[in-house]
Amino acid sequence: MSTPSSLEEMIIALRCLPGVGPKSAQRMAYHLLQRDKTGALRLSQALENAVAGIHHCTKCNNFCEEEICSLCRSPKRDPSLLCVVEMPADLLMMEQAQCYWGMYFVLMGRLSPLDGIGARELHLERLVKRASEQTCEVILATNFTVEGDATAHYIATLLYAQGIKVSRIARGLPVGGELEYVDSGTLAQAVLERREVTG
Amino acid sequence: MSTPSSLEEMIIALRCLPGVGPKSAQRMAYHLLQRDKTGALRLSQALENAVAGIHHCTKCNNFCEEEICSLCRSPKRDPSLLCVVEMPADLLMMEQAQCYWGMYFVLMGRLSPLDGIGARELHLERLVKRASEQTCEVILATNFTVEGDATAHYIATLLYAQGIKVSRIARGLPVGGELEYVDSGTLAQAVLERREVTG
Repeated sequence: MSTPSSLEEMIIALRCLPGVGPKSAQRMAYHLLQRDKTGALRLSQALENAVAGIHHCTKCNNFCEEEICSLCRSPKRDPSLLCVVEMPADLLMMEQAQCYWGMYFVLMGRLSPLDGIGARELHLERLVKRASEQTCEVILATNFTVEGDATAHYIATLLYAQGIKVSRIARGLPVGGELEYVDSGTLAQAVLERREVTG
Repeated sequence: MSTPSSLEEMIIALRCLPGVGPKSAQRMAYHLLQRDKTGALRLSQALENAVAGIHHCTKCNNFCEEEICSLCRSPKRDPSLLCVVEMPADLLMMEQAQCYWGMYFVLMGRLSPLDGIGARELHLERLVKRASEQTCEVILATNFTVEGDATAHYIATLLYAQGIKVSRIARGLPVGGELEYVDSGTLAQAVLERREVTG
């Protein structure tokens, strides 16, 4: 075949993107070379910068370029509320719903024994330490999937043992649904109807 | 919002890919940062290399890293046949169908007056010059869309005036269909049943 090797390598590399198979990768590569070389170079630079520059915030564990992210540093946020989410995309959805003004803790995953992810891998001891400091209420906003529910239950037990008030966002979200894809109104309703967990 | 700027820039940059909207771009960015930093760096490098290294072959106009591509240099190809396709992806499909052993000319587009693409933008004079050299038959394998058909008809008129034999791959492909997505068997049949165009 006559495909140049750097084009072939580009097609293979594009397949690291989620949801991109061989045909889409080929289409993307040809599109970039034919129509958008500037975009390709910009993407190349952006990927490099992001991988080099982005770390985890030492307070909320979210992606961040400094040691502590702007949200954790903001004086406008209520430090007595701590919302626990699975992923950065979930935090983003919470912010877009404009229904919550407290702090966050991003688990970067969920309990999933089958995948070898337990309490230690999620650094739950950091969450407990963080919650013990100045938090009045921890709001659990993990997904309403089996793993998300199990994670919420596990964290609730841990925090309740420390005497910390724990609540769970209301099951206004469709069962089995994921935070990242819900509409803002439903999510806002779920935060409003959160209920206390008593261990 | 608390999104780091290099993450935001990465999400925007990912939207240059065809079929990727804001939500997919966000999902891709988080996936790369959470699960596949190596893949992200590899993609960054591949994009840079491809944009820097890939040019057009001076003979067939396809993407190529040298002045003349390996297909044009191959002694195994029949120089008396010249197949005209719209895009590099179409050439790839022809090769995968394993039904054709001649040379190629890639138009890198099609006649589309509404988009301001005429005979001059497609460099058809290069095609005519190329075909006049040692070609016995030009096989037109542009798509069976309105623009592809118009392009084939225009090229046929040009070449027929030069006394060059011209054929069109058979309409075995579904009408309105595009070469890139057809199965190999149908494409092979279409090449077999090509018919001479008499201007």
